[in-house]
Amino acid sequence: MTRYATIGTSSIVDLFLEAGRQVEGFEHTVAHSRDSARGEAFVARHSAARVETSLDALAVADDVDVVYIASPNALHHDQAVSMLAGGKHVLVEKAAASNAVEFGDMLRVAEEHGVVIVESVRSLFDPSYAAIEGLLPALGPVRRVTFGYCQRSRRYDRILARQQVNIFDPEMSAGGLMDIGTYCVNPLVRLFGEPDAVQAAGFLLPNGIDAAGTLLCTYSDKVAEVLYSKATNSDAPSEIQGENATLVIDVIHNPRHLRLLHADHHSQDVHIDKPLSQQAYVLQAMDQFLTDPSQAHPFNRASLTALRVMDRARSQMGIHFPADGLRPPR
Amino acid sequence: MTRYATIGTSSIVDLFLEAGRQVEGFEHTVAHSRDSARGEAFVARHSAARVETSLDALAVADDVDVVYIASPNALHHDQAVSMLAGGKHVLVEKAAASNAVEFGDMLRVAEEHGVVIVESVRSLFDPSYAAIEGLLPALGPVRRVTFGYCQRSRRYDRILARQQVNIFDPEMSAGGLMDIGTYCVNPLVRLFGEPDAVQAAGFLLPNGIDAAGTLLCTYSDKVAEVLYSKATNSDAPSEIQGENATLVIDVIHNPRHLRLLHADHHSQDVHIDKPLSQQAYVLQAMDQFLTDPSQAHPFNRASLTALRVMDRARSQMGIHFPADGLRPPR
Repeated sequence: MTRYATIGTSSIVDLFLEAGRQVEGFEHTVAHSRDSARGEAFVARHSAARVETSLDALAVADDVDVVYIASPNALHHDQAVSMLAGGKHVLVEKAAASNAVEFGDMLRVAEEHGVVIVESVRSLFDPSYAAIEGLLPALGPVRRVTFGYCQRSRRYDRILARQQVNIFDPEMSAGGLMDIGTYCVNPLVRLFGEPDAVQAAGFLLPNGIDAAGTLLCTYSDKVAEVLYSKATNSDAPSEIQGENATLVIDVIHNPRHLRLLHADHHSQDVHIDKPLSQQAYVLQAMDQFLTDPSQAHPFNRASLTALRVMDRARSQMGIHFPADGLRPPR
Repeated sequence: MTRYATIGTSSIVDLFLEAGRQVEGFEHTVAHSRDSARGEAFVARHSAARVETSLDALAVADDVDVVYIASPNALHHDQAVSMLAGGKHVLVEKAAASNAVEFGDMLRVAEEHGVVIVESVRSLFDPSYAAIEGLLPALGPVRRVTFGYCQRSRRYDRILARQQVNIFDPEMSAGGLMDIGTYCVNPLVRLFGEPDAVQAAGFLLPNGIDAAGTLLCTYSDKVAEVLYSKATNSDAPSEIQGENATLVIDVIHNPRHLRLLHADHHSQDVHIDKPLSQQAYVLQAMDQFLTDPSQAHPFNRASLTALRVMDRARSQMGIHFPADGLRPPR
């Protein structure tokens, strides 16, 4: 049995708890909300969990193994550090932190307290990732990678109406890159490592946050782009282009159909069987990490590398978070 | 009647002459080839044209109105200047020249001699261009543009076999950007003007030429990418993403199917009726330019801007042509 506490009451936590019902041994014991009424309304929808309004109390609660943090990005570091220091494992929503320095700090605290922290970049845990990795040798030398996630957010209308929205708020360490670009950056660095160079440009809103942007990542033997937008839609797939074949990925953040387009133009379809929801695979992986923490290391390395890439990109786009520079490496 | 001479005997000239048969008043009078036997073999396939082995003689020939130049890019400038100075109009294959300085020089010589020079970027002359331009207002504010042309060249196999190939030879002012990237850069600058910033990275062959690459172009209110490759294939469409709708373009260098994907997710297909070959539209336009040279100006401006963008990109990728820096602006 793995006992989860949740921090946050947004729709992503609803999905998380639905996924929990697909996973053996998952138990939701505590729902944190600063507002007890909102917390009670939330648990009434979901489970028999108790409501906890104090983070300090949650950190030392004895009915919790793992804390799932789904608050705004800007809060991830401090909340995670509290939980880790209290001996709790942490599963933190993407983006794991405001920047790489914060996440490095979180990893160190986890190490010190003998607990696990993992960023929930869902697509890296579901069966599509292994399928993509397994098809790479068929591509021959990879020369181009294009990962794109462009989806007009309903909340973009509120931005156009000049309202304040968390997901477009630099105070929340938010914006397009942190919110959805990360679904491209993470598999890129997981599959191909840290790029030698990162160039970036974005379409910034008047408050200095990015609604859309592009990262041009250079490797010694290939180029890669990350294309993202919360202001506009795309119908284009993602691709990994090798000299022998191109792998076409229908939806980078939730691949279901892969297509191998060989240089001789014959093609081969690969359907990804995904009986569970994406978060359920994250929860299954989390159970493995609790048994063998070393299995989390490749995920942690990718999360840290992805944040470094995003830090470099934000710096070039002129996107600054209050959290940047607050925490020099210990 | 418009009397054409051709310089070059490659397959692109075959296509050009086939297109000529679709255009009223087109006449092929002279085929230039340095090698008279090759020239005779070429005209035997095509027309009653006479063969001319001397460029100087061609420049002053009185049976030629327009010279179509389809030699390697590195030769375009000197050949065009000779023809223009001899009072001939010039239709030059893309890329128009090795760099913007050369093309600026060609434009000045044309102006001085009261003749027309136009770069044959075929897709800008066919009905798809007007259709795309006509659909732009439906997109609302454009925030992202992705134009891609990735097609593995049969000649890339010869590169892998370590053979010398003109199209991958810096001495010829060739490479992926000049050869096919230009089909993305040209419509980009024609539709949206010169970018404020150009960042670029490429996959370079051992001889320093680009087999693939990416240009990240920044505008004050949008970002745009040019994705090209002669080493790998792509199945992804090109896109112009606006806040109200995204225009999906099936094949950027020869659009036949456009799709307008509205923000509310309903979509609208636009089929481009293209009864003639692409080059036939270029020839029809050329006839108009001979009557009214001012109609060539927007095409010339786009060609010059595109070469400036490609110069900036090449400089960042470290791709140098012998022609670069040879001709300072007069």
